[in-house]
Amino acid sequence: MSEIRRLGILTGGGDAPGLNAVIRSLAKAAMTRHNIRVVGVMDGFSGLVEMKTRELELGDVRGILPRGGTILGTTNRGNPFKYVERLADGSERVLDASAIAKQNFERLGLDCLVVIGGDGTLAIAHRLMTEHGLPVVGVPKTIDNDIAATDRTFGFATAVEVASEALDRLHTTAESHHRIMLLEVMGREAGWIALHSGVAGGADVILIPEIPFRMEPVIAKVWARQNRGCPFSIIVVAEGACPKGGDQVFQSRDETTGWKRLGGVSYQLAPVLKEKTGLEVRVTVLGHIQRGGTPCAIDRILGTAFGCRALELVLAGRFGHMVALRGERIDEVPIEQAINRLKLVDPAGQLVSCARSLGIVFGNENADEVLDNE
Amino acid sequence: MSEIRRLGILTGGGDAPGLNAVIRSLAKAAMTRHNIRVVGVMDGFSGLVEMKTRELELGDVRGILPRGGTILGTTNRGNPFKYVERLADGSERVLDASAIAKQNFERLGLDCLVVIGGDGTLAIAHRLMTEHGLPVVGVPKTIDNDIAATDRTFGFATAVEVASEALDRLHTTAESHHRIMLLEVMGREAGWIALHSGVAGGADVILIPEIPFRMEPVIAKVWARQNRGCPFSIIVVAEGACPKGGDQVFQSRDETTGWKRLGGVSYQLAPVLKEKTGLEVRVTVLGHIQRGGTPCAIDRILGTAFGCRALELVLAGRFGHMVALRGERIDEVPIEQAINRLKLVDPAGQLVSCARSLGIVFGNENADEVLDNE
Amino acid sequence: MSEIRRLGILTGGGDAPGLNAVIRSLAKAAMTRHNIRVVGVMDGFSGLVEMKTRELELGDVRGILPRGGTILGTTNRGNPFKYVERLADGSERVLDASAIAKQNFERLGLDCLVVIGGDGTLAIAHRLMTEHGLPVVGVPKTIDNDIAATDRTFGFATAVEVASEALDRLHTTAESHHRIMLLEVMGREAGWIALHSGVAGGADVILIPEIPFRMEPVIAKVWARQNRGCPFSIIVVAEGACPKGGDQVFQSRDETTGWKRLGGVSYQLAPVLKEKTGLEVRVTVLGHIQRGGTPCAIDRILGTAFGCRALELVLAGRFGHMVALRGERIDEVPIEQAINRLKLVDPAGQLVSCARSLGIVFGNENADEVLDNE
Amino acid sequence: MSEIRRLGILTGGGDAPGLNAVIRSLAKAAMTRHNIRVVGVMDGFSGLVEMKTRELELGDVRGILPRGGTILGTTNRGNPFKYVERLADGSERVLDASAIAKQNFERLGLDCLVVIGGDGTLAIAHRLMTEHGLPVVGVPKTIDNDIAATDRTFGFATAVEVASEALDRLHTTAESHHRIMLLEVMGREAGWIALHSGVAGGADVILIPEIPFRMEPVIAKVWARQNRGCPFSIIVVAEGACPKGGDQVFQSRDETTGWKRLGGVSYQLAPVLKEKTGLEVRVTVLGHIQRGGTPCAIDRILGTAFGCRALELVLAGRFGHMVALRGERIDEVPIEQAINRLKLVDPAGQLVSCARSLGIVFGNENADEVLDNE
Repeated sequence: MSEIRRLGILTGGGDAPGLNAVIRSLAKAAMTRHNIRVVGVMDGFSGLVEMKTRELELGDVRGILPRGGTILGTTNRGNPFKYVERLADGSERVLDASAIAKQNFERLGLDCLVVIGGDGTLAIAHRLMTEHGLPVVGVPKTIDNDIAATDRTFGFATAVEVASEALDRLHTTAESHHRIMLLEVMGREAGWIALHSGVAGGADVILIPEIPFRMEPVIAKVWARQNRGCPFSIIVVAEGACPKGGDQVFQSRDETTGWKRLGGVSYQLAPVLKEKTGLEVRVTVLGHIQRGGTPCAIDRILGTAFGCRALELVLAGRFGHMVALRGERIDEVPIEQAINRLKLVDPAGQLVSCARSLGIVFGNENADEVLDNE
Repeated sequence: MSEIRRLGILTGGGDAPGLNAVIRSLAKAAMTRHNIRVVGVMDGFSGLVEMKTRELELGDVRGILPRGGTILGTTNRGNPFKYVERLADGSERVLDASAIAKQNFERLGLDCLVVIGGDGTLAIAHRLMTEHGLPVVGVPKTIDNDIAATDRTFGFATAVEVASEALDRLHTTAESHHRIMLLEVMGREAGWIALHSGVAGGADVILIPEIPFRMEPVIAKVWARQNRGCPFSIIVVAEGACPKGGDQVFQSRDETTGWKRLGGVSYQLAPVLKEKTGLEVRVTVLGHIQRGGTPCAIDRILGTAFGCRALELVLAGRFGHMVALRGERIDEVPIEQAINRLKLVDPAGQLVSCARSLGIVFGNENADEVLDNE
Repeated sequence: MSEIRRLGILTGGGDAPGLNAVIRSLAKAAMTRHNIRVVGVMDGFSGLVEMKTRELELGDVRGILPRGGTILGTTNRGNPFKYVERLADGSERVLDASAIAKQNFERLGLDCLVVIGGDGTLAIAHRLMTEHGLPVVGVPKTIDNDIAATDRTFGFATAVEVASEALDRLHTTAESHHRIMLLEVMGREAGWIALHSGVAGGADVILIPEIPFRMEPVIAKVWARQNRGCPFSIIVVAEGACPKGGDQVFQSRDETTGWKRLGGVSYQLAPVLKEKTGLEVRVTVLGHIQRGGTPCAIDRILGTAFGCRALELVLAGRFGHMVALRGERIDEVPIEQAINRLKLVDPAGQLVSCARSLGIVFGNENADEVLDNE
Repeated sequence: MSEIRRLGILTGGGDAPGLNAVIRSLAKAAMTRHNIRVVGVMDGFSGLVEMKTRELELGDVRGILPRGGTILGTTNRGNPFKYVERLADGSERVLDASAIAKQNFERLGLDCLVVIGGDGTLAIAHRLMTEHGLPVVGVPKTIDNDIAATDRTFGFATAVEVASEALDRLHTTAESHHRIMLLEVMGREAGWIALHSGVAGGADVILIPEIPFRMEPVIAKVWARQNRGCPFSIIVVAEGACPKGGDQVFQSRDETTGWKRLGGVSYQLAPVLKEKTGLEVRVTVLGHIQRGGTPCAIDRILGTAFGCRALELVLAGRFGHMVALRGERIDEVPIEQAINRLKLVDPAGQLVSCARSLGIVFGNENADEVLDNE
């Protein structure tokens, strides 16, 4: 195992609160304890292809612990294997720029690359290692908490906290106005944010991608509540929730402009709910507020611990591995265990069962039972 | 002036953080200091027509100070002068139920009615007084801060705080992703929330109903920022903002369902901004989160002070008047001063001028100047 | 196993955010799903001795999820085995009232008692079971996170969040004034809150009971920071932190009144730090703010899940057991595994090592190394 | 009036949330709109005597709006008229360094000095103007809100918000444990923070310096609450509150070390309350958490507006004046109107009267009345 003198670090995919905690902890420990130079690769893998980098100094990572986002920039694009080049005439072409990425890695004199990202970003890192021999170490990142092989990811706790606070706020207005409030949260494939914030925020209905829903039990729940003097309901919807037998995700476009909008499933549900229950319905789409801003304490700690552990993996030459939370420990697992498979909510799992025992409806119940159970 | 023994209280229009502070303070002082019985009229004026009321006890108003919404319920409907009656066959008819309201007021044995509401609700109260002789005292309420004759209304500070925190969160994600983030806040006629939260949240562009905008200076601002190395921008839009020469409010409907959605103006702006600047654009519509939930300290204090002062007006027989904040004092003004006129943002006022001097664009600037000034 | 028809529930020891989540979830599921009557025993075990109880209805547990404290009341006293009776003449005597507790349990017609409490409370529950045959199920509770046999307890995340926010606030004032800010947090035996909030809040020094400290490395850290242009430092101190070779906990009393005060160790450190570093020092003792108020989302979820699982233990007749978090699962363990042993911070554990690699000083370092490492 | 080309700016006294908003707004507008160079004088007036300054660039003031503290540093010392010089032998001497300050002002090529500070700092600025002809413009700053001639100061709203949130947290723990919770907040001469946070936080007793208190009505209030089934109370104490006929401020020192501590008056009250009421009493001293950290929206807006207005005063040559909030306007007043007089709470004012009508006790009531009124 050769000595590490220069270490590259990049963040890819959507931002998540806690990214800066990882960068800070890894860079600080590398510089002060091991005399390793740290090079920030800007804007995800596109920075590696386009040689946009920045030598990090200690001053660059001071004070960034409470800051959301990533000081390195990030993007959902920039896959070197399918690099989109803009030509002079304004057209685009897709090419394999992975060899360029490899070349630039060498020109930068890097001994290792730490890649912080989700499923897609980690898959690219893995492929750069297997196909081009790049020594990579991974740090899993997803606001949705759906990466396999790690119990939790940073950013998730913050998103759940933000969504729960929104539910607290919606509760009082729902109650005062006798309304149904629909809150749509992130989660295209996995319903973790909806499930956790729904339980924390005292929701009446939680709709998640893992449990295709029918309208009958949802409406039955609203009725049952009205019957016992609660003429308002709170419904949390993951953006990827879909009706039984329906398409995976509702399309939602603005009528006049055709602009794609968040809130697809919610805006499908709203008119149906209004018609069937007679109650006013209001939709709130939480959107990017969930993923921006200062991380909560837990995410700062998890990000910090991930950064320290990633450096240990680097120093031990455990390339091709990524850090992972297992119980109370930060462990290591092969990156390939995390890619190409998602960690989904188990419809028969503990928290769903607990929620059901509290009367929370997931949309696959028998409507009669819902009425009786209230 | 006859003695007050029974006092009715109702909340009308949309809810606002601080309503419960008013109810608590008025009811607590009336009961404990003056031995006055307080009757809560439920769900705005509809409760008066339909005789839905509740005798308030001390226990009912304990612990409600930090709670959002209103324990009396509220609604945007229920105008007794245009009361919508649902008939047995499902059809509706509109009738003048104001005499019924008057009758019920007498049947309830009330000596006075305290009406907490906005422009519309106060206008009804005023008409009940002038046409039916109902002794009313008003408390102004609007999240939008657009009621004439009072410097501020409770709920506004909370809405501005919530919107500012959202801007703080959006800032880091905008910066990390080099995006334009559009935040749409409440304000159909008046841009107070947009102006205040935009200044507090460090926005680059603020679009308000009072200043019809053109796209050129907005785009010029985004370009100017990019030119000096800030490839992201934050735009705050009041829901009632409209382009110069355009319709008052953009329509926004879901393509497939036709459901009316919030975010009209934002979803018009987004595609244009994307096309003209080449940057990714994301829209967040803050919606009902602005008006729900626990009031901030300032709104609790203002609501409490309004409630105490309203009771003084009742005791002094100052019917037809409402409480109003003037500087640091809670004053009284005739209700008619508050109705049929809105308090709008002055485009030449201090805070707009201050914002302009900081480079914030309102959309009516000369695009060249915007570029030069950055 | 006989059927459960009436279930008692009590909360003992200091309050923790999330207690109401446990009560609500257990009571709601018991009543609506299993037709079990739930009896709240008031003010811990003293309610069992003195027959202060309250039949819980569904309405009693609605809306309590976001509320701190416990609707059942709690106390640090009331051990039935050492019950303190106040006599008519004002004097007190200690007697064994455990047989009375047993009798009352029977008079109340209870089939089981769910005890939510810390080490001490659970030990009493265990003894009531072994000595008097009371069928008990436990739910572990401690703000300090020091109960053995469970990975986490509810309330801890909220305490860490509150302490981290305090650190964020102290940071800016420390920096502006070039001061040392000492924040004292809870943790008499275990330093979990200090460790976690210190890492999350970017502290420079963390002093915990598990690592007896010397002043030299602490002062060396402050100097080292000054040498590189950071003339301010943040120190987090657990209330039970103690100097190497010193007493377990510093005494702190007010000079004039002799009133016992929080802040013992901090007020010992402050004058020494001031003298040795020449910097101004300010002490903040966070106190009861850490344990009151609305629980964060994670604690609401954990409390809810604990409540559901406790009911399962009751229904399965698993008396003498308590619920426990293990990784992502809610498990069961014999109560005796949790009592008479504390879960302490491992001075060689992952998070301490991570913190050290970031330059955080724990007070048992070599002062020269501290200076060199900065 | 000569043209302004170089402008100095300094912050003096204790920090307050919103200082950076003033600096940013003034510096940004000066640089971008008027081509004025801005020089930051570091650490209050001591920076002027010791020539510690920093040329501010636009980049220095970007992103500082949400940050607490002051990027210029500040101190409670550094009065040039009584400058404390440390000699080589470790001793100190006091000298008049005001001529040096004047000289340095000229050496720096400044055309004007904007001084942001409290009563004391503004008095120094005024004296530098009258005695040395320095052209100064003032911006009032005090967390305590006790500066005469301005309705409000920035930082105050944040302090009230932080204290109210602490009261919300203490409420639930007080209720669960049947305790008296004492919260001590800032306010040595004026009780504004205590009064406002006490009203917002639903306190039962508020003790402020402007109303010397007796223990009888305080104890009567606790009793009265107990009699009607509320065996807990919340007491807010300003640090400068004092008993009728007592010393201005209680001394509080640690018994063993003699270190001066916060919480003087609270630690005097606690043992008396415990003895007279039989309830447990807990003291929380909020301390520096009140003045650090991110400003709330209102303080960011007020700071921003003050900064813009101060620049207008500079440009108009209105030296010797300071900005001031009057109702909804930012006005100007002669600095001398603000110094040597404090704005105190009027014991007969609206908010105190309102609080009294809600049953809040200030300590100068007749104890019998307190008991009757509950």
